[in-house]
Amino acid sequence: MRLLLINPNTTTAVTQLIEDAARFAAPPHATLSFVTAQRGVPYISTRTEALIGGLEVMNILAEQSVDHDAAIIAAFGDPGLGAAREMFPIPVVGLAEAGMLSACMLGRRFSIVSFAAALEPWYQECVEWHRMESRCASIRTLDNRFKDIGDVQNEREVLLVELARKAVEEDGADVIVLAGAPLSGLARRVRDQIPVPVVDCVAAAVGQALALIGIYPIRPSRGAFARPAAKPSKGISPALANWIAGNA
Amino acid sequence: MRLLLINPNTTTAVTQLIEDAARFAAPPHATLSFVTAQRGVPYISTRTEALIGGLEVMNILAEQSVDHDAAIIAAFGDPGLGAAREMFPIPVVGLAEAGMLSACMLGRRFSIVSFAAALEPWYQECVEWHRMESRCASIRTLDNRFKDIGDVQNEREVLLVELARKAVEEDGADVIVLAGAPLSGLARRVRDQIPVPVVDCVAAAVGQALALIGIYPIRPSRGAFARPAAKPSKGISPALANWIAGNA
Amino acid sequence: MRLLLINPNTTTAVTQLIEDAARFAAPPHATLSFVTAQRGVPYISTRTEALIGGLEVMNILAEQSVDHDAAIIAAFGDPGLGAAREMFPIPVVGLAEAGMLSACMLGRRFSIVSFAAALEPWYQECVEWHRMESRCASIRTLDNRFKDIGDVQNEREVLLVELARKAVEEDGADVIVLAGAPLSGLARRVRDQIPVPVVDCVAAAVGQALALIGIYPIRPSRGAFARPAAKPSKGISPALANWIAGNA
Amino acid sequence: MRLLLINPNTTTAVTQLIEDAARFAAPPHATLSFVTAQRGVPYISTRTEALIGGLEVMNILAEQSVDHDAAIIAAFGDPGLGAAREMFPIPVVGLAEAGMLSACMLGRRFSIVSFAAALEPWYQECVEWHRMESRCASIRTLDNRFKDIGDVQNEREVLLVELARKAVEEDGADVIVLAGAPLSGLARRVRDQIPVPVVDCVAAAVGQALALIGIYPIRPSRGAFARPAAKPSKGISPALANWIAGNA
Amino acid sequence: MRLLLINPNTTTAVTQLIEDAARFAAPPHATLSFVTAQRGVPYISTRTEALIGGLEVMNILAEQSVDHDAAIIAAFGDPGLGAAREMFPIPVVGLAEAGMLSACMLGRRFSIVSFAAALEPWYQECVEWHRMESRCASIRTLDNRFKDIGDVQNEREVLLVELARKAVEEDGADVIVLAGAPLSGLARRVRDQIPVPVVDCVAAAVGQALALIGIYPIRPSRGAFARPAAKPSKGISPALANWIAGNA
Amino acid sequence: MRLLLINPNTTTAVTQLIEDAARFAAPPHATLSFVTAQRGVPYISTRTEALIGGLEVMNILAEQSVDHDAAIIAAFGDPGLGAAREMFPIPVVGLAEAGMLSACMLGRRFSIVSFAAALEPWYQECVEWHRMESRCASIRTLDNRFKDIGDVQNEREVLLVELARKAVEEDGADVIVLAGAPLSGLARRVRDQIPVPVVDCVAAAVGQALALIGIYPIRPSRGAFARPAAKPSKGISPALANWIAGNA
Repeated sequence: MRLLLINPNTTTAVTQLIEDAARFAAPPHATLSFVTAQRGVPYISTRTEALIGGLEVMNILAEQSVDHDAAIIAAFGDPGLGAAREMFPIPVVGLAEAGMLSACMLGRRFSIVSFAAALEPWYQECVEWHRMESRCASIRTLDNRFKDIGDVQNEREVLLVELARKAVEEDGADVIVLAGAPLSGLARRVRDQIPVPVVDCVAAAVGQALALIGIYPIRPSRGAFARPAAKPSKGISPALANWIAGNA
Repeated sequence: MRLLLINPNTTTAVTQLIEDAARFAAPPHATLSFVTAQRGVPYISTRTEALIGGLEVMNILAEQSVDHDAAIIAAFGDPGLGAAREMFPIPVVGLAEAGMLSACMLGRRFSIVSFAAALEPWYQECVEWHRMESRCASIRTLDNRFKDIGDVQNEREVLLVELARKAVEEDGADVIVLAGAPLSGLARRVRDQIPVPVVDCVAAAVGQALALIGIYPIRPSRGAFARPAAKPSKGISPALANWIAGNA
Repeated sequence: MRLLLINPNTTTAVTQLIEDAARFAAPPHATLSFVTAQRGVPYISTRTEALIGGLEVMNILAEQSVDHDAAIIAAFGDPGLGAAREMFPIPVVGLAEAGMLSACMLGRRFSIVSFAAALEPWYQECVEWHRMESRCASIRTLDNRFKDIGDVQNEREVLLVELARKAVEEDGADVIVLAGAPLSGLARRVRDQIPVPVVDCVAAAVGQALALIGIYPIRPSRGAFARPAAKPSKGISPALANWIAGNA
Repeated sequence: MRLLLINPNTTTAVTQLIEDAARFAAPPHATLSFVTAQRGVPYISTRTEALIGGLEVMNILAEQSVDHDAAIIAAFGDPGLGAAREMFPIPVVGLAEAGMLSACMLGRRFSIVSFAAALEPWYQECVEWHRMESRCASIRTLDNRFKDIGDVQNEREVLLVELARKAVEEDGADVIVLAGAPLSGLARRVRDQIPVPVVDCVAAAVGQALALIGIYPIRPSRGAFARPAAKPSKGISPALANWIAGNA
Repeated sequence: MRLLLINPNTTTAVTQLIEDAARFAAPPHATLSFVTAQRGVPYISTRTEALIGGLEVMNILAEQSVDHDAAIIAAFGDPGLGAAREMFPIPVVGLAEAGMLSACMLGRRFSIVSFAAALEPWYQECVEWHRMESRCASIRTLDNRFKDIGDVQNEREVLLVELARKAVEEDGADVIVLAGAPLSGLARRVRDQIPVPVVDCVAAAVGQALALIGIYPIRPSRGAFARPAAKPSKGISPALANWIAGNA
Repeated sequence: MRLLLINPNTTTAVTQLIEDAARFAAPPHATLSFVTAQRGVPYISTRTEALIGGLEVMNILAEQSVDHDAAIIAAFGDPGLGAAREMFPIPVVGLAEAGMLSACMLGRRFSIVSFAAALEPWYQECVEWHRMESRCASIRTLDNRFKDIGDVQNEREVLLVELARKAVEEDGADVIVLAGAPLSGLARRVRDQIPVPVVDCVAAAVGQALALIGIYPIRPSRGAFARPAAKPSKGISPALANWIAGNA
């Protein structure tokens, strides 16, 4: 089982965090590949950046999906998820999606905890897209300050644990979803400091991708994710244009 | 990874179907055990029977949870799931829950397709308990006639496929969830006759149980599934009474 | 009009509180009977205990429903309500249901106020089962400490009044529903200390049971509460088995 | 217990139907009074007419509420209910409200069945005002033709029964609420022709009014139905002006 | 384009505020007329008063709608809006409706900020009538004290700005809707003191009325706002009776 | 007042339709500019294409927003709307948004009627993003066949009118929203053949853009559409990179 993990951020240090968390979570029979966005921003936190990152995810999948059994969009917010799901024949899972769905089995309501306030509006829209409002107790974030996106999980660890505890005490969270690829791996380290289960989204996504492969889903020819009809296009990457044109 | 699959129905032929589907879906590193309810009815289809089946699930978990890493309640409708989750330290997954959450990654809206109209009110409440209404396009069932619960999936195969197709055409389902332990394994056989992905709930539950183990969730001391305070009880099984009394 | 009030808790002191509140509320033409659970826990506060209590409610109704015009499940949380409603021919009302529906006529939104935090997750699910989320401003509970379940309403009276006031001030409650059979009768005593109406659930349930009788509802042969088809069973009380087998 | 039943329609034949249904449903200890609107239309079916009828309900209550223990607004749609509830010290119940809340105890979802399509938009807003959407399976109405509003229940009986059956078969209704004061008393006559319970809203309202009296609700000084501050007014009935001015 | 702005309050000083705000907002090609309620209260803040004001709106439209291209009900809470929309052939817009719909294009969630706590229950029902709950972050009001309804916007300006800021900080409002005709024009004055856009409802309503005219909507003969069938009536204004009788 | 109308499709014939409809609707004091996407597909109908179109909208606004008072994203589905709203200082309105919000003032529930089934999943997500589910009666589309996107409104006129009528009759639509830029101008032509108001989304968008300008909204420094912090980027258009970098 070959999983492709796509980091839609351009920061390779974040890809490394994703890789570490994924390798820890994956069973022996899974083969993992990792790819970092060539276009976009160091870390996505807005709708504009998600648009850019989403298109880059599509570019990457247009080139590499064929060699994999499933793919993971490794940014909380799941940029490009709907598009990927309609276009490519393999199962695609988003980090937010996997984290939230897994959290549903560990509590009635989860809180999303992350490091930057700037992420909140985008995360909120992501919760709504997945229709998870009734399971989401709150989104809690720190302010926007930090030095290094590749090290923000260490830099802000104490404050993040405190924030998670507040979500439990004040918002009634039964589970904590640590959100944002830069926090990958943190859950394992802080799990004993928080009184409810903490979900690592990369670990959840690896589990969900494998679970999906185990269902052997066919490619739909009907419904919301049936493959769109072929179309000409201009001004986009040749690989993606090829898929849109129905040639891949 | 040791998974315990509990059939809350008293029919061993159904346990066999569950076992076949689970063994097909499970990766090599998973060890599977199966147990059939000693108390209850041949197959659960009402709230009354779910109450009986739910308590029997608790009796079984009280005796056997300690030797496993996760448990699956192998009846769509998830009898006893909330109770099991608050009482026992291992992750517990319901068949309906696993099927619906997995379906969320394959479409925007799923339809639940099953063999007996009698199941519908109970299934509807199950969908609501999981707060999945906005993802559920419809529940479709055949009438209540069939000869043998252990063979109903063969006996009714043609009609079930037709029903699934109607759910796609008329209700807008993007995914079909074949519901009810007696239909375990059917998805694999009919997947090519239905234009959208079909979820086998046992396969989904095995995947979800493994995904949960991969998250290493702690036992919550707060929130909706914190372990209840110890209490005396009377008139129930000694094993369960022991857990309620805080001695297990 | 013969009403059967079932205390699913095993504590007779609580049955006495229920009886006092019911006799105060009932009009002269109503005849009241009371029964206490033989199996279960002193007071139900979790899903596990509700499962046990719900089955015991079914056992009691299997034996005694035939002699009554309506029954009341006298525990907030309404254990066994759905099952009872599908199985027995008389109207059955839950304490939570009656309290909440009555509250709907006294305000736009009610708060549920009770004595123990442990009850909250179960009560929350009960609100959801009745689809009353949009009418429920909050659930407020004291911590879990108290000495005697039969006297908790006196022991905690001052704190409960304070909590109810907070629900009005901070949560916008227009009505207070005092929840939990052990609080039966308290509403009458504290009503002048709280600036909005306070609902005694036993009084409400007596009123609602009589209102239902006045509608002369037929036994449904269709819909969510049509009587289930007969089935064999094993390991349960003979009386209930008889009903499930279609012999009662 | 003195109940005031207000017919906001100007047709006395409808008041007679209300009276017959109420007297059949009321227990011996209840004293019933009936009053017919002096201003307005023969039967209310639109928002404009409900505005007129609602104000007339207020005029009537301004004069007569003081001599009663509770009042019933005997038009489905509940014209003036919110206003009455904030202004007068006695419990006030609406026909729609009582019918729907009672139906909640007889099924998971009810259908509202009535005689004229013109009523549907107003009824729909009434369902929404009471936040009952998730319990309402459908609103079904005949077309707008009938000869005599005081006899429409006989004239259209066969078609109404057929419509109710369709609501059960096609919309999944577990209960039928026969809506509109002109249908008062019909439920009793047709109950054996419909496979689920049928609610007579006048019977339900009498039951609910008595249930509310049994709760002894205080007059709220806080919340959505606290009495408004006194104000001058012009151009309205002296009795109502008196209440608005804080003199009653 | 001739717009009729109706002040359902009897205070002419409020009509003057409405006029000032409307003239500031209206483009040169719009002709504006203003009318003040002859019946009712100085300023509407309760359901009772909204019933009276709503009927007065209908009386005014019955007389003057024919000479205009669109009308604005210039009270937040939109008294009589549904009735006006079903009866008269010109577009009618409510102040609350216009403010909220415009706010939807400036943020994900708005807060309604007003001067008197007494308004809150009525405003809340208005939000629900428009099905805007998911876009409404909060309703925030000052206490009920003020000296002069025609000057309350000056008298309370500092506190209102502070309240708006709190709605942004604590409730997550992306936009502020200043609610209540007596606050007309205030938005322009305080816009630089609040970190998110502030909506003046009169300005919004002028814009929305013109937008509606630009759509050239036909008079519906079907649906929720089709004109009701003609009916006799008694005890109401001749002009409105004429419309209800189908003679206008 | 200078409005910029952006056609995110690459077909200039569609831009011409947009221009015709906009010029018909705009008042004399509005100056209109039109621009057609250089990158993308002839007409957007999927999430993948919306991602591409959304980014192209951002590219266009990055270059041209500075010279306008408001912008309109002239594709139903509103590609890039959230991103545009957070990044640029002028009001931005989407075609779907404007059509739906305007429809809210003409009925309780609208139906969206369009020419191609392929559009439905994307439109459905758009309805959800705007939280308009409770106001949307249905989305109705023809099948995917047509010859010329620039002439589809003529080619399919008869079928579209029929579809709109079905939405009124069968789905209870009070208003029809003709969806998709290629249908611009059609509403005017068919309005007399449909029994409820028909909304032309371009006309609605022009009205809404002018309404927004009339509110003089400030640029938010807080909330969901506060401008994001500056960031480096790579691989995107210089103009957009400039805005993301905080240099514009």
